[in-house]
Amino acid sequence: MALKVQKYGGSSVADIDHIKNVALKVAKAYDNKNDIVVVLSAMAGITDHLISMARKAAKSPSNRELDVLLATGEQTTAALLAMTLKDMGYPAKSLLGFQAGIITDESSGKARIIDIKADRIKRLLNKKNIVVIAGFQGNTLNGDITTLGRGGSDTSAVAIAYAVNADICEIYTDVNGVYTTDPRICNKAKKIDTISYEEMLEMSVLGAKVLQIRSVEFAKKFNVPIHVKSSFNEEKGTMIVNESSYMESVVISGVTCDKNETRITLKKVPDHPGISAKIFTPLADAKIMVDMIIQNTRSDGRTDLTFTVPTYDFKKAKEISEKVCKEIGATEILTADNIAKVSVIGIGMKSHSGVAATMFKALASENINIRLISTSEIRISCVIKAKYAELAVRTLHTAFGLDSKKTIDA
Amino acid sequence: MALKVQKYGGSSVADIDHIKNVALKVAKAYDNKNDIVVVLSAMAGITDHLISMARKAAKSPSNRELDVLLATGEQTTAALLAMTLKDMGYPAKSLLGFQAGIITDESSGKARIIDIKADRIKRLLNKKNIVVIAGFQGNTLNGDITTLGRGGSDTSAVAIAYAVNADICEIYTDVNGVYTTDPRICNKAKKIDTISYEEMLEMSVLGAKVLQIRSVEFAKKFNVPIHVKSSFNEEKGTMIVNESSYMESVVISGVTCDKNETRITLKKVPDHPGISAKIFTPLADAKIMVDMIIQNTRSDGRTDLTFTVPTYDFKKAKEISEKVCKEIGATEILTADNIAKVSVIGIGMKSHSGVAATMFKALASENINIRLISTSEIRISCVIKAKYAELAVRTLHTAFGLDSKKTIDA
Repeated sequence: MALKVQKYGGSSVADIDHIKNVALKVAKAYDNKNDIVVVLSAMAGITDHLISMARKAAKSPSNRELDVLLATGEQTTAALLAMTLKDMGYPAKSLLGFQAGIITDESSGKARIIDIKADRIKRLLNKKNIVVIAGFQGNTLNGDITTLGRGGSDTSAVAIAYAVNADICEIYTDVNGVYTTDPRICNKAKKIDTISYEEMLEMSVLGAKVLQIRSVEFAKKFNVPIHVKSSFNEEKGTMIVNESSYMESVVISGVTCDKNETRITLKKVPDHPGISAKIFTPLADAKIMVDMIIQNTRSDGRTDLTFTVPTYDFKKAKEISEKVCKEIGATEILTADNIAKVSVIGIGMKSHSGVAATMFKALASENINIRLISTSEIRISCVIKAKYAELAVRTLHTAFGLDSKKTIDA
Repeated sequence: MALKVQKYGGSSVADIDHIKNVALKVAKAYDNKNDIVVVLSAMAGITDHLISMARKAAKSPSNRELDVLLATGEQTTAALLAMTLKDMGYPAKSLLGFQAGIITDESSGKARIIDIKADRIKRLLNKKNIVVIAGFQGNTLNGDITTLGRGGSDTSAVAIAYAVNADICEIYTDVNGVYTTDPRICNKAKKIDTISYEEMLEMSVLGAKVLQIRSVEFAKKFNVPIHVKSSFNEEKGTMIVNESSYMESVVISGVTCDKNETRITLKKVPDHPGISAKIFTPLADAKIMVDMIIQNTRSDGRTDLTFTVPTYDFKKAKEISEKVCKEIGATEILTADNIAKVSVIGIGMKSHSGVAATMFKALASENINIRLISTSEIRISCVIKAKYAELAVRTLHTAFGLDSKKTIDA
């Protein structure tokens, strides 16, 4: 007896047979006396197909019209699931973004939800309907259709769960939950039972494959409990909850690895106030997401400044950096794209000392040289040579006691 | 300098290349200082594809959800055309049914337009936008999506043309206009330059291939001039207008032929009041569209009652008739499905005598026996053996002086 929001991703609604499978899961939850709101993605591959159509139609497709086009994907699955459920004898009704009262700002293609007028959803629930909502889409106050960006259905689901005050937001996907690390790299990776919003955010590299990180930010802000689980079996997945609501004393929850960053170092930057702004403002203007920033003091009144950027922005970032380099009188630029960032993440870090030491020792034991270090309250990241990435992940996974007894492929 | 509503059918927007062709036509009209509203169908074949998906999902798909599903077809083409036009540098905006203010009743799948709140369309036109509207769809006052039935985009276009007080509603299709008869039967068929709403309605057999008959009813009611033309060339098509506004003294505008009817005769029906109601009420209850009804008086106080029904309803109609036959004491039922109805249609008939005589003489000259006759103010129909249908059409086409000088395939 709970109010559940269930979100099913693209691989869970990939075709009619998959949609029927989803209908069975929804019907079962409804039969167990739960109130159910379903939020759906488009069929796997459809969004890409629509984008490629748009690219054929227009060199640079209008964002407004692209949103109108993309919104058909979730409209299709919502209608199909609702009619499947009705055909099975269940009272189901589909709602599109504008019908579900999902109000967003005007940023086509990456709109933010500013309000959910959930009256209609609530009215339908009160009449014991299963409410099937097209995810990923919303409507501006002017009545224009918007979409929430890649993976936006997760955010739809969490926002709706908040708006209707759901007991749980279940995110159904094609994996069993969130793992301590990437099982493809480390076959001792373990499914995590419970993780905090903060850890999940830091584990975005792992998490992005499972759910949109924005949805976790939203869930954290409004304290919406999320349960990530597979739509293809009945196993318990991973609960993502408020830090305070889970009591396990795990120090490290997971190990992540990101090879999609490139390092840029400006050598001998004059060390005086305002210089960092001169470097990073043009990068920000070019919408390049700078990740790590490390500054070493030298003895000659100058400083070496190193930062990392996503590899797909590297070319642009290098051009900008070279220009800035001349302007501020830095001597040269060094770049390295054969790097990887390995991180250990855990809420427990806050109250446990020695995590960094354990990490550095473990890497040293394999003769892995650390190039850069950065830390947050619940994360320590080291940049190393890319070729050591997998070895580092496995070593850290073992060092922090995360290995499962049985291996994934056993 | 006119306000034009241009409607493009499924074959005109069949793929991205076709949509680009439509964009060029729209842009040209806009460049010629016209205000343009475009109404689009779904890509050819898409609606059928969506219906087959729905049938896979549900044995009897919910009409409400089917409408949500089908509406994606026109949403797709509207978005694609708008982005193509914008990419070409034109200010275009797509509107879906609910955004365009198209209010319908609640009859999912065959909704009727009850109002068009055209404020937004007008506002966009005032700002010199090309307004691209998804045809076929509307929205109930409760905010549910509805569709208008097969070919509904024609009705969307005419209704919008009325709502914005357009100078003309142009229906772009894959034929050059309305012909005096089916060119596949008679290669001397001629394109008609101007035809009245009334004639067009009577010529629904020909017309249905060109535009939804409901749209003609709507246009007649509100006096919206329609221009049916090809989207693949620049030729003038067929104007469909109010009778009074065209002055040509053509007696017969066209010859039609319909082989999709089946004849049912109830022999020796007791001839007393109320008997017809007993026969036709159960047929109406079964939603069978009875076309011709002919009653011959006999000398024995009984009557033979003959009617025709669409062939796809024949089986059901026969079962009902057999039941009724017993109840009312008719002696037997005769049926014939190898029949054809040929008709001559023309407003001029109202003021010209001798049309029927000419028709009967022409058929007699080819030894074609007439089984049934029915007439309206502007139509004479004869039921004949199906095998003579094509011969009858060609004979009548010549007899009424409709033959073009050059043949279609010359």
